Amino acid sequence: MVGNPVEISAARILEPVLEDMEAVEALIRQEIDRADPSLVPLLTDASLIRGKGLRPGLVLLMARATGDFIPDHIVLAAAVELIHNATLVHDDILDEATSRRNRMTLNLKYNNETAVLVGDYIFARAFVLANSLENKEAVARLSQMTSVVCRGEIAQVLRRYDADLDEATYMKVIADKTASLYETASELGALLAGADAKTVKACAAFGRCLGVAFQIVDDCLDLTGQESVMGKTLATDLDKGKLTLPLIRYLQESTPEVRSQVLEIIASDTPRPEKRTRILDLFQENGALDYAYGRARGEIEQAMALLKGLRPSPAREALEMLAGFVVSRRH
Amino acid sequence: MVGNPVEISAARILEPVLEDMEAVEALIRQEIDRADPSLVPLLTDASLIRGKGLRPGLVLLMARATGDFIPDHIVLAAAVELIHNATLVHDDILDEATSRRNRMTLNLKYNNETAVLVGDYIFARAFVLANSLENKEAVARLSQMTSVVCRGEIAQVLRRYDADLDEATYMKVIADKTASLYETASELGALLAGADAKTVKACAAFGRCLGVAFQIVDDCLDLTGQESVMGKTLATDLDKGKLTLPLIRYLQESTPEVRSQVLEIIASDTPRPEKRTRILDLFQENGALDYAYGRARGEIEQAMALLKGLRPSPAREALEMLAGFVVSRRH
Repeated sequence: MVGNPVEISAARILEPVLEDMEAVEALIRQEIDRADPSLVPLLTDASLIRGKGLRPGLVLLMARATGDFIPDHIVLAAAVELIHNATLVHDDILDEATSRRNRMTLNLKYNNETAVLVGDYIFARAFVLANSLENKEAVARLSQMTSVVCRGEIAQVLRRYDADLDEATYMKVIADKTASLYETASELGALLAGADAKTVKACAAFGRCLGVAFQIVDDCLDLTGQESVMGKTLATDLDKGKLTLPLIRYLQESTPEVRSQVLEIIASDTPRPEKRTRILDLFQENGALDYAYGRARGEIEQAMALLKGLRPSPAREALEMLAGFVVSRRH
Repeated sequence: MVGNPVEISAARILEPVLEDMEAVEALIRQEIDRADPSLVPLLTDASLIRGKGLRPGLVLLMARATGDFIPDHIVLAAAVELIHNATLVHDDILDEATSRRNRMTLNLKYNNETAVLVGDYIFARAFVLANSLENKEAVARLSQMTSVVCRGEIAQVLRRYDADLDEATYMKVIADKTASLYETASELGALLAGADAKTVKACAAFGRCLGVAFQIVDDCLDLTGQESVMGKTLATDLDKGKLTLPLIRYLQESTPEVRSQVLEIIASDTPRPEKRTRILDLFQENGALDYAYGRARGEIEQAMALLKGLRPSPAREALEMLAGFVVSRRH
C-alpha cells in the first residue's frame, strides 16, 4: 500500500502507523500465499494490497488515538480491507469497469463469472480472518455492516436512470454503501483499543462523516477526475445512469429544457468519455460541483469537531490530515 | 419448504424434524420481513424458502440422531440454507439460468447486477445469523466452508471446455463446491448437539459422502432430467462447457472420433436443449451414466456404514432414507 507515486499523500498521513500497515499488508499477502495455488494469480490480479489503505489506516489510527493498540487491530484492519476489496471486485462487474488500481479489472482480464466467484471468495476469507478476533461483538458488527453495504448498493442499482432521485435518498444510499464501512472501521478500532462507550460512539460518528464526504468527492471525481491519476475507469456513474450529488443538484437547479437535455444525454448510447465531456460542458455555469464539495466539507467539519474530544497525539493529527485529504484529494 | 407436490419424498424424510423445519422457515421469513422494504420483493424472488431443505434438514436430523437438540440448531440450519441460497443466486448468473425452484431467476427477472448484490446481501445476512450462535467455533467453520465452496466453483469455471479434465480433478471440485456444505452441516449439527469428537468426525464424513453423491446425481440429472420436474434450467453444464462425471467417463471410454465429435457439439453454438439431445443420443450405447450412478451409490454405501455407529432412532432412520433419496431422486 506504499510506494505508488500517486499515493504519496495517503502514505504520508499513514506514517504514524507505517509498521502496522506493513503488518496488515503482510497478513493479506499471507492470505494470498496460503490459498490454493490455482487462486493465487486471481487474488494477485484482484490487487488486494494496492489500494491507498484508507480504511485499514483508519482502524489503526483510531486504535492509537483512543487507547491501547493490540495485535487484533491488525486482523481487524486486514478484514476491513478484504471486505472493501470484495465489494470493489463486484462493483467493477456492475460498472463494466476495465481498470482499477492501475490494473485490468478481473471482469476484463478473466470474465464476469470468475469475478463474481473471486469476490465471494474474498468476502468469505475476510470473515474467516474476522472470526479469529477475540472480540466476537466486532465479528458480528462486520457481518452486519456488510449487509448494510449491500443494501446501499442494491438501492443504487434499483434507482438507476431515476431522474427524480432526491438528495435525501442519495445521502441514505451513500451512508449505507460507503460510510458504513468507514463508520465500522473507526468504531471497532476504538472498541478494540478499550475506549469508553462515549468515545467509541464519537469515533463511529467521525467515520460516518468521513465516509459520506469520501463518497461525495468520489462521485465528483467520477465526473472531473483523470483516469491516469485515479487509476480506475471513470464516468461509470453516468454510463450506468447513477445520479450522484453534483448531477442531482444540477438537475434541481436547471430549467426544464436543460434538465431534459441532460437526462437525454445520460440515457443515450453516447460513449462514456464523450457523455462526460458533454455533461461537464453543460455544468460550466452552474455551481453544482461547488455545492457537492460544500456538502462534503460540511461533513468534514463535523468530523473534525468530533476529533476534539480525543487527547492530542500524532494519531489524532493524522486523523485530522486524513479528514482534510478526503476532500482535497485528486485520486 | 413443504407443500410442493414434487417435493413429497424430501418432505417425508424430514417428517421427524417437521416442527424444527417450520422454525427454520419462520426464521428465514423473519429475515426477509425485517429487511429494508425495498429488499423484500428481491428476497421473496430469491425463493429462500422454496427449496427441498435437504441441508437444513441434515443439520436438524443430525442433532436429533447424535445428542441434544438446542435452539441454536435452528439458527445454524437457517444460516446453512441462506449460504446455500446465496451460492444459488450467484450460480444462476454464471449459468445464465432462467428458472430455479419453478420461478424466474433473479438475473432474468431483474439483471445480473441486482443478482450479484442480492447474493452478497444473503451471504452477509447468513453470517449475521451465524454470529448469533453461541458456539463460535461453528461460526468460524461456516466462513471457512464458504471459502472452500467458492474455491471449488472457481476451479470449475477455470476448467470449462477443458477436454482433459480427469475424474480425480472433478471429484476434488465437487467435494469443494458441494460436499463441503453437506459435510459442515452434518458436522456442526452433531457438534452443537454435544456429540463426542469421534461421532462428530463420522458425521462430517457422512455429510461429505452424501454431498459428493448428491452432486454426481445432480450432474446426471442436468443431462437426463426434466425441467418441469426439477423446477430449474437444465443442460447448463453442457452449455457452459462444464465437464461432469458422465461426460468425463464417456470421453474416456470413447474412440478418438466419437471423442472429437462430442467435444465439437459442446463447443458449438447449438441451442442448449438440442445440444443435450445430441449428446444423449451418442450416450445410448455407452455405460457412462450407469458408471456415474455407480460412483454415487458407492459414496452412499460409505455414508450408510458411517450411520451404523449412531444409536438407532427415528432421526437415524430418516438419515438413511435421505441417503437413499439422494441417489434415487428425479428432482
